[in-house]
Amino acid sequence: MSEHTVLKLIKQADQAITNEDFDRLMSFYAEDAVLVVQPGQIARGKAQIRRAFNAIARHFQHRLTVHQGRAHVFEGAGTALVIMETQLFIGDAKTPVTRRATYVFREDPADGWLCTIDNSYGTDLLDAA
Amino acid sequence: MSEHTVLKLIKQADQAITNEDFDRLMSFYAEDAVLVVQPGQIARGKAQIRRAFNAIARHFQHRLTVHQGRAHVFEGAGTALVIMETQLFIGDAKTPVTRRATYVFREDPADGWLCTIDNSYGTDLLDAA
Repeated sequence: MSEHTVLKLIKQADQAITNEDFDRLMSFYAEDAVLVVQPGQIARGKAQIRRAFNAIARHFQHRLTVHQGRAHVFEGAGTALVIMETQLFIGDAKTPVTRRATYVFREDPADGWLCTIDNSYGTDLLDAA
Repeated sequence: MSEHTVLKLIKQADQAITNEDFDRLMSFYAEDAVLVVQPGQIARGKAQIRRAFNAIARHFQHRLTVHQGRAHVFEGAGTALVIMETQLFIGDAKTPVTRRATYVFREDPADGWLCTIDNSYGTDLLDAA
């Protein structure tokens, strides 16, 4: 089975995070998308999401690299749910911090697949509830 | 904060499962929604989803009750991601089987919020990858 389009987009977005190319990164998000910055903190809309990624880059002293691990994609009714291991490599660390992420995409007639909800914490948010 | 509409809909859907009212249950799904029946098995579209719920009801000898535990809802760009403890009470069991589920909804201009992806296994699917 060929790789789902949204997995290719996530790889490109991960590269944009590594390069701190936030103009490019924002092109993967819907205008009123939501990013779970950390448990209890949400960024809503491209302006807030961009500011959050700037803050994340500073927090990791501009040494954050993001890779994909195992993944499943479910597509239904113009939406896609991605269940994925997201690996954060910080600085010179040889082993990543691995999150079990959940991403939602919507297929837009004009713009193709756009990320609408970016929750890298997945169901672990229930621990913080 | 008032409860998000999709949480109310999930409660109504859970009641429909308990009552085995599959006509009503199907009204919560988009026409081409996807249900993760079990790891590696997908039902696509209302006809397949209905057959899957019939099989599930038989499997649990018509003694399945579904309740919500803790939940988070994230809404962005006309979609919603629900992260939820889904509690399955089977027969006379006092303690439920708890899953950490992920549900995707899409807001339809005519029909309101409809479930597009029903994955009660959440990120645990990565264990089966």
